[in-house]
Amino acid sequence: MTRDRAFGFAPGSIGNVGPGLDVLGLAVAGAGDTVAMTWHDGGGMTVADAGHPDLPREANRNTAAIAAAAVFALAGMQRGATLTITKGLPLSGGQGGSAASAVAGAVAANHLCKAGLDTNALLSCALEGEATVAGRHADNLAPSLLGGLVLVRSVDPMDVIVLPVPDALRVVLVHPAMQLRTRDARAVLPEMVSRQVAIAQVGNVAAMVAGALLGDLALLGRGVEDQIAEPARATLLPGFLAAKAAAREAGALGCSISGAGPTAFALVDSLGTGEAVAGAMVAAYAAAGLTATAKVAEIDREGARAWE
Amino acid sequence: MTRDRAFGFAPGSIGNVGPGLDVLGLAVAGAGDTVAMTWHDGGGMTVADAGHPDLPREANRNTAAIAAAAVFALAGMQRGATLTITKGLPLSGGQGGSAASAVAGAVAANHLCKAGLDTNALLSCALEGEATVAGRHADNLAPSLLGGLVLVRSVDPMDVIVLPVPDALRVVLVHPAMQLRTRDARAVLPEMVSRQVAIAQVGNVAAMVAGALLGDLALLGRGVEDQIAEPARATLLPGFLAAKAAAREAGALGCSISGAGPTAFALVDSLGTGEAVAGAMVAAYAAAGLTATAKVAEIDREGARAWE
Repeated sequence: MTRDRAFGFAPGSIGNVGPGLDVLGLAVAGAGDTVAMTWHDGGGMTVADAGHPDLPREANRNTAAIAAAAVFALAGMQRGATLTITKGLPLSGGQGGSAASAVAGAVAANHLCKAGLDTNALLSCALEGEATVAGRHADNLAPSLLGGLVLVRSVDPMDVIVLPVPDALRVVLVHPAMQLRTRDARAVLPEMVSRQVAIAQVGNVAAMVAGALLGDLALLGRGVEDQIAEPARATLLPGFLAAKAAAREAGALGCSISGAGPTAFALVDSLGTGEAVAGAMVAAYAAAGLTATAKVAEIDREGARAWE
Repeated sequence: MTRDRAFGFAPGSIGNVGPGLDVLGLAVAGAGDTVAMTWHDGGGMTVADAGHPDLPREANRNTAAIAAAAVFALAGMQRGATLTITKGLPLSGGQGGSAASAVAGAVAANHLCKAGLDTNALLSCALEGEATVAGRHADNLAPSLLGGLVLVRSVDPMDVIVLPVPDALRVVLVHPAMQLRTRDARAVLPEMVSRQVAIAQVGNVAAMVAGALLGDLALLGRGVEDQIAEPARATLLPGFLAAKAAAREAGALGCSISGAGPTAFALVDSLGTGEAVAGAMVAAYAAAGLTATAKVAEIDREGARAWE
């Protein structure tokens, strides 16, 4: 009825994707986090390796272990298991690392137990892990689990919609060498916004959704205009506004902060444009005194996967 | 180079369509406003018939005449013209009447002059008329001109996107016998909203757009949840909340206030359900002491038209 061991992998993701604070996320192909699970005697979760010295091995503080425990609870599984986490994503980078670990833990646990949980149940379990470090939102979790561009209409109840994106879409991720804790990046968000800002934000996210579904990359890019999180967080991110201007100049469809930052992202319509945008953004950060690394990636359209 | 006379017709529309305040509009087939135009000696616009005794005949206060004058100005036309307006839509009803008159005036003037203005130019001209009575927003103008469900990403610059809607979609319009001035309905809108409300609003409008484009009527309906305008305006609209509950009970996909009200609308997936919903809503208003009239309509997919 169960397997002897299971692996789960979940890709990184861009949260918010500009104006879609807590609502839009985009899965990024390539790097991701992997969780290996085996049974152990006694109940509960044990973390054999958290994947990075700065990540907690205590099962009730580790996002992957919390998510796995939630799956076990839903599945009525009493046995205990050991997790070995391999981090392919940076910590606190704004690349969806905590969400990827939580999702990988959830799908690994689901596979180990043969629990057969559905998408919403897996998301809710992963959310228990994510919420301990990043707040109660699913804009990284949902694309990490499902792939592609995902709209999170609601978390309670969970209501997520996968939006097909045009084949040509590529993303540029630029990571400046600085730390920004998710907690600090959330603390600067305004509690209240003007009605005009809310309306503009609604229009921009709706345009991004329409652009994705209509295959209109220019429209998708025009929607990447954030009047809530970006203005607040840009003050914490030296070099970002210059990098954004450079990205636009180099042909990006749109550019903003990935999740809570410090990573910046740009949407582009080809690998070639992506490389030009990446170079321009790295140069802009350098001019601001920050070393930055960049990559051009495809959209991960598969989402999380599990195997034995 | 010009025609001797021209007619313009524009259908009514539902503004906001729930959470899409100033951003979403839906054209309704059937009733609309018609503007007939002929030349007259001397410059400027003259209104021969405003279509209703309560509507101004002064050319600088009449939405159709203001829009027509804006078209003439853009086209460099120095001659004057006379407008005869036939109102098929109620005044101050929340059914897009002022917008329909403005759009009909713009397309009639464009046709009369053979000006060949593009969509954005026509919208900007119609906006000059609409702005004098209803504020600077295009969520009624855009569907009235273009048909269907239309997203207004931005007004300055004008950026509107027509969203195909599922064939089965029908709308129920229920008009309780009461007056609510657009000005009063706008005055109760909150100047500031919480970040959580803004995020929920973003998610709901995005879900409506996704539902329309994916052909998912249930999703389209789930998105009809307005946390900004509806709670504020419901206080001015006795019977509305009971009618909304009755609509849901009778099978509506979603229900909210049409534009600034007092008309309420419901989205339904068939004529039959629409008739049941209409009956239930009228009964709910009756129980609240208000006589209401209802109709079930198709979506107008053509928008404004002009002829000689």
